Amino acid sequence: MTHSRQIGVGLIGCGTVGAGVAKLLRDNAALYAHRLGGVTPVLKRVLVRDTAKAVATGVVQANIVTADADAFFTTPDMPIVIEVAGGAGPIGVCVRRALTSGKHVVTANKSLLAAEGPELFALARQHNASIAFEASCGGGIPIITAIQFGLMANRIDALYGILNGTCNYILTEMTQKAKSYATALKEAQDAGFAEADPTLDVSGRDAAQKLAVLASLAFGVRVHGDQVWSEGIDKLDLVDIRLAAELGYEIKLLAIGERARVSEHSTETRLSLRVHPSFVSKRIPLAQVHGSFNALSVFGSANGHTMYYGRGAGQLPTASAVVSDLLNVASGWYPNAFASMNLWSHGQGPAVVADPDELLSRFYIRMNAMDVPGVMAKVSSILGEAGISLSSILQHEVNAGQFVPLVVTTHLARQGAVRAALQRIGKLSVTEGQPVCVRIVDLPQG
Amino acid sequence: MTHSRQIGVGLIGCGTVGAGVAKLLRDNAALYAHRLGGVTPVLKRVLVRDTAKAVATGVVQANIVTADADAFFTTPDMPIVIEVAGGAGPIGVCVRRALTSGKHVVTANKSLLAAEGPELFALARQHNASIAFEASCGGGIPIITAIQFGLMANRIDALYGILNGTCNYILTEMTQKAKSYATALKEAQDAGFAEADPTLDVSGRDAAQKLAVLASLAFGVRVHGDQVWSEGIDKLDLVDIRLAAELGYEIKLLAIGERARVSEHSTETRLSLRVHPSFVSKRIPLAQVHGSFNALSVFGSANGHTMYYGRGAGQLPTASAVVSDLLNVASGWYPNAFASMNLWSHGQGPAVVADPDELLSRFYIRMNAMDVPGVMAKVSSILGEAGISLSSILQHEVNAGQFVPLVVTTHLARQGAVRAALQRIGKLSVTEGQPVCVRIVDLPQG
Repeated sequence: MTHSRQIGVGLIGCGTVGAGVAKLLRDNAALYAHRLGGVTPVLKRVLVRDTAKAVATGVVQANIVTADADAFFTTPDMPIVIEVAGGAGPIGVCVRRALTSGKHVVTANKSLLAAEGPELFALARQHNASIAFEASCGGGIPIITAIQFGLMANRIDALYGILNGTCNYILTEMTQKAKSYATALKEAQDAGFAEADPTLDVSGRDAAQKLAVLASLAFGVRVHGDQVWSEGIDKLDLVDIRLAAELGYEIKLLAIGERARVSEHSTETRLSLRVHPSFVSKRIPLAQVHGSFNALSVFGSANGHTMYYGRGAGQLPTASAVVSDLLNVASGWYPNAFASMNLWSHGQGPAVVADPDELLSRFYIRMNAMDVPGVMAKVSSILGEAGISLSSILQHEVNAGQFVPLVVTTHLARQGAVRAALQRIGKLSVTEGQPVCVRIVDLPQG
Repeated sequence: MTHSRQIGVGLIGCGTVGAGVAKLLRDNAALYAHRLGGVTPVLKRVLVRDTAKAVATGVVQANIVTADADAFFTTPDMPIVIEVAGGAGPIGVCVRRALTSGKHVVTANKSLLAAEGPELFALARQHNASIAFEASCGGGIPIITAIQFGLMANRIDALYGILNGTCNYILTEMTQKAKSYATALKEAQDAGFAEADPTLDVSGRDAAQKLAVLASLAFGVRVHGDQVWSEGIDKLDLVDIRLAAELGYEIKLLAIGERARVSEHSTETRLSLRVHPSFVSKRIPLAQVHGSFNALSVFGSANGHTMYYGRGAGQLPTASAVVSDLLNVASGWYPNAFASMNLWSHGQGPAVVADPDELLSRFYIRMNAMDVPGVMAKVSSILGEAGISLSSILQHEVNAGQFVPLVVTTHLARQGAVRAALQRIGKLSVTEGQPVCVRIVDLPQG
């Protein structure tokens, strides 16, 4: 067999993931050539802002590194461009330029896709190019491939994902080692798991962007990142983690997309799209996802519950997804499949998103209540007037007259009603501060 | 958009899975036409042995059902054939006939692939046809798609799978409800989870056939079902399940394929391919796979540990995999991808399989020992002479002079040495019967 044929690849960005891509292409050249029937993918040019930094990674040759976009895009014989620089803005311009010149794009950029997916996909179709984006969600776990191809026979009804490794790492440390949120975050930052400014991660926005991409694919509608509402993990207290355990739950930051039926006879599909801390039963597989691992549970109309688990971030796991996409593009079948896909096409309408207040959920509510007679009566009458019925009540013994955590869990209730009731409870003189409220998420039977 | 175009599909077999396929095609016609850009897959002819039985399912029209293979294969405009009849022999003849006439084949038949995969794949290539086989392993879980496409950038180093739902159901009932093997099996049979003759399942042979298919794909070699050795679950006693729990493990029937390095400097890859009851730590995700669910843990060189979880059997989950394959074939990209795949090609050598005696593993060993002085000395000297060192010893208090379970766990030891030592222990006058031995399986750090 001859291994002399090559396919040229351009790389935009040479940070952690970019260097991982270069490393995989260098170290596995023979394996990839075998898998492509004798064609070797070869890095032709690397576009970065800081060329010295790229060269210092030691995995790309200095003579192919450039900071000049024109030099990059005029490189001959480079039909595939990998974009792992991240962010929108100038990178969006680069991706458009690649697509406009008919180059296939492999990208890990969830924020770009969540913001401009429909426009980029239209541009790709117009120029007979394709966009592969396995690395944009769930790092090394092939969840895009699963939804896009493996589950083709299913109408997908719901997605429940742990899509942010930093948050899951922090929650795992809080749960297993009783660390405070601040301590766990600090340690994650010191270990390099969390950014110096962790806002994008801990606010839930990173997971929301990934959910926008997955929901577009799964539900066949155009979802914009801003259509996903989110609550972060930064308000969680260790006491809630402990109480969750006592009640048989773990707290996870879940990204949830599900079809919300508006009325029995309506054919309109509204989607509930949200990211928030969630009580999940210890018995479901998602509860067993620890540390920086990610997982996605998918509920399909034919095959019920499937789950996909693995490393959601990190140099080689993410590079694995990028290079797998690259090989699938290079072998020719992916562009072919892309052309026949409806994703983010004009054939898809924009997502109709349910009002957060309409959400029906069970809730965990913790109040700091003065241990005096009549508190429970006041609290339960406010909840009762709002039509919220209680499922369980938990209060530990303390000395009378002190503030003590009073915990209730509810049956299914409208989120809007709960929000209004909590505002009233927060104003009671026998409670201190605002109540803490976490949704209890029950996965479908599947 | 016009939905008038059709693509003709032939169906061989109309039992549980076949009826599920017909049902999905009937109920989701509009969805599938949308996903295929306006092309509707339509059942043209159904080939069965018993036509009345097929018609009685109520999901196929009588006028397309036939028991005549010639009538089936001469049906015009039927470029895709689905085979869900199962078994080798006459069904193998049908599959060959379909491929020889250039038809694409979608099959759920692991025993056929485990026995004749290389020959069938060669035949398909020769006639520009393709074989899609997602349903052959893991039911509704898209694990073939994941390995074949999603993990392309990885050299795969190990597979650990729970691939037989019947066995996992029985083990779950034994573990969670303290039922005996016989009771759990009987209940599984009554509920329709297990066959009247459960041998193929409980012996581990069904899982072995699936592992042969997965290992061929994952390791890029030609694996025959007979190269996988197996031990079933039918010898497991409730006492071992209880002792496993006490030691922090669950017992699962694992199908394991991993690269076994022969020597430091050898480039030869031997595979260890086996199915056997296994102690797995309660903390790993596979331990949380309960009931009839299946899962596969894959260890890749770049992305580490990924796991795939879902229903491994049942009408609609299996039909979901079949119809997903069908849609991927109909959309045109799968045949394209198949043509560029090396699977079961002449470019792949046959698997070189490690001798079971060479296996290095930790072991759980339970003996029925007379509670008299010196028993432990005799047992440990036999193990010591065989070079087997002990990791833990467990014996509960009983009245002196009675037989009592004496349990040891070992450090890594050669399976051949353990086998020989157990034969010697079995002959001691102070032990009763043959010792029970279960491998303790530690998953790689990934």
